[in-house]
Amino acid sequence: MSETMNSTNPADVLQALIRCPSVTPAEGGALTALQALVEPLGFKVERVTMHESGTPDIENLYARIGDSGPHLMFAGHTDVVPVGNEADWSHPPFAAEIANGMLFGRGAVDMKGGIACFIAAMARLVEEKGAPKGSVSLLITGDEEGPAVNGTVKLLEWAKAKGEHWDACLVGEPTNPDKLGDMIKIGRRGSISATVTVRGVQGHAAYPHLADNPVRGAVRLSDALMHPPFDHGTDNFQPSNLEVTSIDVGNPATNVIPAAANFKFNIRFNDLWSAESVQAEILHRLDTAAAESHLRPGREPIAYDIVWSERPSHVFLTRNNALIDSLSGAIATVTGATPQLSTTGGTSDARFIKDYCPVVEFGLVGQTMHMVDERVSVEDLETLTRIYKTFIEQWFANADA
Amino acid sequence: MSETMNSTNPADVLQALIRCPSVTPAEGGALTALQALVEPLGFKVERVTMHESGTPDIENLYARIGDSGPHLMFAGHTDVVPVGNEADWSHPPFAAEIANGMLFGRGAVDMKGGIACFIAAMARLVEEKGAPKGSVSLLITGDEEGPAVNGTVKLLEWAKAKGEHWDACLVGEPTNPDKLGDMIKIGRRGSISATVTVRGVQGHAAYPHLADNPVRGAVRLSDALMHPPFDHGTDNFQPSNLEVTSIDVGNPATNVIPAAANFKFNIRFNDLWSAESVQAEILHRLDTAAAESHLRPGREPIAYDIVWSERPSHVFLTRNNALIDSLSGAIATVTGATPQLSTTGGTSDARFIKDYCPVVEFGLVGQTMHMVDERVSVEDLETLTRIYKTFIEQWFANADA
Repeated sequence: MSETMNSTNPADVLQALIRCPSVTPAEGGALTALQALVEPLGFKVERVTMHESGTPDIENLYARIGDSGPHLMFAGHTDVVPVGNEADWSHPPFAAEIANGMLFGRGAVDMKGGIACFIAAMARLVEEKGAPKGSVSLLITGDEEGPAVNGTVKLLEWAKAKGEHWDACLVGEPTNPDKLGDMIKIGRRGSISATVTVRGVQGHAAYPHLADNPVRGAVRLSDALMHPPFDHGTDNFQPSNLEVTSIDVGNPATNVIPAAANFKFNIRFNDLWSAESVQAEILHRLDTAAAESHLRPGREPIAYDIVWSERPSHVFLTRNNALIDSLSGAIATVTGATPQLSTTGGTSDARFIKDYCPVVEFGLVGQTMHMVDERVSVEDLETLTRIYKTFIEQWFANADA
Repeated sequence: MSETMNSTNPADVLQALIRCPSVTPAEGGALTALQALVEPLGFKVERVTMHESGTPDIENLYARIGDSGPHLMFAGHTDVVPVGNEADWSHPPFAAEIANGMLFGRGAVDMKGGIACFIAAMARLVEEKGAPKGSVSLLITGDEEGPAVNGTVKLLEWAKAKGEHWDACLVGEPTNPDKLGDMIKIGRRGSISATVTVRGVQGHAAYPHLADNPVRGAVRLSDALMHPPFDHGTDNFQPSNLEVTSIDVGNPATNVIPAAANFKFNIRFNDLWSAESVQAEILHRLDTAAAESHLRPGREPIAYDIVWSERPSHVFLTRNNALIDSLSGAIATVTGATPQLSTTGGTSDARFIKDYCPVVEFGLVGQTMHMVDERVSVEDLETLTRIYKTFIEQWFANADA
């Protein structure tokens, strides 16, 4: 990173972060770059590596400016999802090239872009007025896109154990479906993933009666999970939705019936369900489909195993007017738009933070997140920086009043 | 090979052949051993190596005794499939050890055993009566278990080009499910394989409306191929059957909707279909399922590509009473059993031979073919030798009449 970087310019900050290839679980230099950006502003930075047997060590970062209340936390992650097929990108995914006003790269919107705008907002505030009256902290993890066991959960416990207390939190995940100012997230659906293995009997494709093709079972079971819909949504939440994200057999021989077939799925569920009740419904659908004997005349029910692959994410909803109004007001001031208060989209680390303080989420436009050619307009980076700066000022003003 | 081998004893002949490790594409000494066995009986032997760019050269053998009609061909192969995990064999796979009346080794039933019995039958006939009135040929390939491009197809073309003409053919593949005499194969189903790729749009599992999950399409399309049945069988054939042998997405991330999903299938089709009509039906099923808009409200039809992965094997049925009756009669005379006239099972080189002359298949019991501890009883070798000898005599007698 250049010594001469202007950290009030969010595009410069974002380019520095994207050029660190921090695909989960790799730190990739991203936290070191972040540290070098915020220490000159007056933040005290702590780097914390978390361990758990069976998972990779994860580096995280906690930084605080100020030592009194009120205390505002900004939370985010520097890790990014894999690039997919790199040849499909029109600009290399870690080059952070700008073309026609768009900045391309993995993490551009999810969510190195949000971090860059918050740093730029703080740099402008410090430059104009010095440190805020109170404290601002950055809680940045390297494990949000992965299993999330060595990231925010442990970092929150670690900070609480050393006496940290927060009054409110803003998570910088991309929250806007179409344009900046569309949407604040005030809650999230729950999420559960699992892997199902269907067991069959291997054999020659010309003698199917001597074999039992597990692909047939995998197709039946995955179809039963995808249809019909689990529900039709609630006042604050959209419908629950299940996606089968992979089916894998790995059989190279077209004349051989394989012995087993695996599929993976993920369900996002709303406040009609608990993690427990949605798991029970899934098992009911699998068992019902497995037993449908008319599809397997003379056969045993489909034999399957299911492994729930992560701790479930519970559904939640935040109601804190001071926090929500500061953010909505800042958005209206800068963009003229009135944001929707929403609970759509994926899980985020807000599901852990909500146990410590009120939490809302607002960041960039999410359309290209996790996709090839993930990108953000340089204009949006400037607008979000102004929104964050106005939000910080209004929140401290509200907290003072 | 010992100078004193008695080629009227099929177990001796089979031991000599098994001890040549002729795993496709290796000749392994097997054709040289065969040549040394049949030249003393009066066969004129030609060794023919076939070439095709991108595939290994394959050695084949053609041998003929007699120079007039009628002309009977015996067809087979000396190549064998790999041994799998050699440590799992109770006797080494190329040692041809006899224990408790069973002869163990790779190729024991598929199909060095069939070749050994035919050689022993010819040796007995020549010893008793001299060469038959007419001709007997051996058409032996080293490429039946492999891609089959440098074997029977080219050897038939080569022999035809030099003026060979046959009146009937017996293929010595293992045809009996349980015991010797159960089953003659008088035809075979056709076979076609293909790979289908369903294209979607990658994205985050929490924003399914921004992505297009190709797993959903792959499940719909593969289900449409597996149900309903293509037919319910015919007088001579069992029902056509399609197996999806693999589905592969290879998506490691449960929170990412993948960009594409592949599946492979193989169909065995009966005489209600031609290769062309079954391909048309498959495309019709795929297109119909792809367009089912109620499963994809507001979406384009499912986008897919199909690649047919090999030249189709055409269905055939042999109706030649002289040939079938000679073989059935020989089986009944030697074993007392009336064999079933069947078209079940996989493809064999008979699908190529049927374009030159009527062809039937009869050999050993197939239960251990391609498996660890492939083996044949010494008693079955003796019985099959007697059946082949009686068949040859009856076929020439019928041809004379």
